[in-house]
Amino acid sequence: MAGNIVTLTTDFGHSDHYVGAMKGAILNVNPEAKVVDICHDVRPYDILEGAFAIAQAYQYFPPRTIHLVLVDPGVGSSRRPLLVTTVKQIFVAPDNGVLSLIFAREEVTVYHITATHYFLESVSNTFHGRDVFAPVAGWLSRQVEPSKFGEPITDFARFNAPKPKKVNERILKGVVLRVDRFGTLLTNLTPDDLPQLSAENPPSIKILVGKTEITKMNVSYSEGAPGEVFAIMGSTGYLEIAANRASASQSLGVGKGAEVGVILG
Amino acid sequence: MAGNIVTLTTDFGHSDHYVGAMKGAILNVNPEAKVVDICHDVRPYDILEGAFAIAQAYQYFPPRTIHLVLVDPGVGSSRRPLLVTTVKQIFVAPDNGVLSLIFAREEVTVYHITATHYFLESVSNTFHGRDVFAPVAGWLSRQVEPSKFGEPITDFARFNAPKPKKVNERILKGVVLRVDRFGTLLTNLTPDDLPQLSAENPPSIKILVGKTEITKMNVSYSEGAPGEVFAIMGSTGYLEIAANRASASQSLGVGKGAEVGVILG
Amino acid sequence: MAGNIVTLTTDFGHSDHYVGAMKGAILNVNPEAKVVDICHDVRPYDILEGAFAIAQAYQYFPPRTIHLVLVDPGVGSSRRPLLVTTVKQIFVAPDNGVLSLIFAREEVTVYHITATHYFLESVSNTFHGRDVFAPVAGWLSRQVEPSKFGEPITDFARFNAPKPKKVNERILKGVVLRVDRFGTLLTNLTPDDLPQLSAENPPSIKILVGKTEITKMNVSYSEGAPGEVFAIMGSTGYLEIAANRASASQSLGVGKGAEVGVILG
Repeated sequence: MAGNIVTLTTDFGHSDHYVGAMKGAILNVNPEAKVVDICHDVRPYDILEGAFAIAQAYQYFPPRTIHLVLVDPGVGSSRRPLLVTTVKQIFVAPDNGVLSLIFAREEVTVYHITATHYFLESVSNTFHGRDVFAPVAGWLSRQVEPSKFGEPITDFARFNAPKPKKVNERILKGVVLRVDRFGTLLTNLTPDDLPQLSAENPPSIKILVGKTEITKMNVSYSEGAPGEVFAIMGSTGYLEIAANRASASQSLGVGKGAEVGVILG
Repeated sequence: MAGNIVTLTTDFGHSDHYVGAMKGAILNVNPEAKVVDICHDVRPYDILEGAFAIAQAYQYFPPRTIHLVLVDPGVGSSRRPLLVTTVKQIFVAPDNGVLSLIFAREEVTVYHITATHYFLESVSNTFHGRDVFAPVAGWLSRQVEPSKFGEPITDFARFNAPKPKKVNERILKGVVLRVDRFGTLLTNLTPDDLPQLSAENPPSIKILVGKTEITKMNVSYSEGAPGEVFAIMGSTGYLEIAANRASASQSLGVGKGAEVGVILG
Repeated sequence: MAGNIVTLTTDFGHSDHYVGAMKGAILNVNPEAKVVDICHDVRPYDILEGAFAIAQAYQYFPPRTIHLVLVDPGVGSSRRPLLVTTVKQIFVAPDNGVLSLIFAREEVTVYHITATHYFLESVSNTFHGRDVFAPVAGWLSRQVEPSKFGEPITDFARFNAPKPKKVNERILKGVVLRVDRFGTLLTNLTPDDLPQLSAENPPSIKILVGKTEITKMNVSYSEGAPGEVFAIMGSTGYLEIAANRASASQSLGVGKGAEVGVILG
């Protein structure tokens, strides 16, 4: 029965009927589909945030999962609907870069969806999530071959995630990608940016965020005194600034987009 | 397996155990039921908003779907629990008008649910969603015939959705029904109220909302300059006031209940 | 097919990828699992609130349901992962007291989960929900025996829910446990604390909350004038302070933690 899971990652929020109508449009094509919410609270129109959300979740799902990713400020324009296959899974999304982090990590085949007979009979100009993408996901979950939906393309939109800047061998400048529910700051710094830390005798580290200097690297959130702010390599694969049972964002007075300086040694 | 989908539309929110307990009460009757959230963020006690949410989603679900609609300020009073069948689907809701938009669009048979042996063994006075409606939905999803739950009635509660007023042949007065997550204003004006716009040579249109005059009708959200406010016939079937990648509600400083004047020609 | 339902109660919120990644990790082990959200809006790190949420929902689910309860401020520390069986159901949670209300009500066997071959291949120090608890729930839903996951223990963490204080035969002091979405105050007073009210001629009752004295006990939310504040024995089994179609919390200006005095006769 693998192959009938359809996940949803959108900026549609929870207060409207939009997600419900999409679920209906999937189930109307395939009542056996298993619709799973990943996240609907991506900031409206924020393609980078949508890209981040799906990139943090897709790899934990089983082979043949179908991921619908709908952050679609260009709905109704000429931006194309895409179907993307990787070795294991399938993605359906608008051609606006929201799958960029998937493109960066996976071998993909990208199709431009043009087979309108898989869409709702009447397609609005304002809600392709319901009228185009949801029914396509429904048909995919009924094992229709990806190649039936359109021709492969190579000129799809993609962007590079904001990378930290190397000022010199010892100094790096990164940025806060997002603040999570716990007030933890997720930066764009990865272990690959800081190979020195994996050395046998790692150098000391100083992290500057807002007006605060952090020198402590922990290995779990619960180390140290309650409220203490520290750095940690997080479950996301990024360097995080966190606090034990408290909000680092609040403690430091910084949020998304804040600069993060790293000085080694 | 069609017939085991149960959707939920409530004002229970996401911060309490209420929705979880209801899901349990459905699954306890039928572990094979497929519970699908439509929306739980209907404003507390707002029957019109609940009516709008279900009316915008039900038609996209497959035949035999069971829709539970729980906005129930009269819980524990003498208001009756209803089971409503249309040609294709089933609705379960309190008798307070929350299904009015379904009554307006569909041929219905309405039953007063009285068969208490389908309820939880002990029924509270304060949570019929869990104790009455959820188990009834569970039994319906096990293919118990609607007529087993009670007698048909015709004196059920219904209200008319607020209609726009025709001031004269050229002037209409509507209202903002709701503001969605994107800040788009959903008005109560439909294409039927504005047949002139479908004419071969449609007249010019002037829309007055708050202190702003809108003269542009777009066909997609992504037309025009970023931030520009315009009118559009939306996926809901209503005239919307929207902005390209921005919140029309914020730009115009208006919200739910605001008056919308339309001047044609 | 009973036994494949996995519920989720967490403090992960809705704006991040955390819940989505956990769902993936469950479904990756068992694509046939049926994941059901109970609540993700437990206040960050608030173990008592998590304990309350699961305690209000679990009993409505069918036998063999697996409940995952993740409020886990000690993630990555030496706190143990637990698997708890009752006569009917299974719970998976960190050993921090979040199952205390289950321990208080059910006969339990508690296992310390040590069988790491049921975990994700690579376990982070910061997200055991995804790396430890979710896969364990997945394997449980595939009917792996609870005893396969580790040894029974008896020294698990538990706390007593805050009980009302009896000042004398006529006076009790309780507390507001939580405020729900409707602004209803859920106190920690139960019918067992107030047996006099079940007598044939119950004494009068006076309830002091904030600066207000409440003398009215209703049996449903819809009694009395709109906005009127009253006391009621709620569906949670606790005494509630509510208002007809209004927020008692707002009317009285009190919230979580507020003292509740009861004077009988």
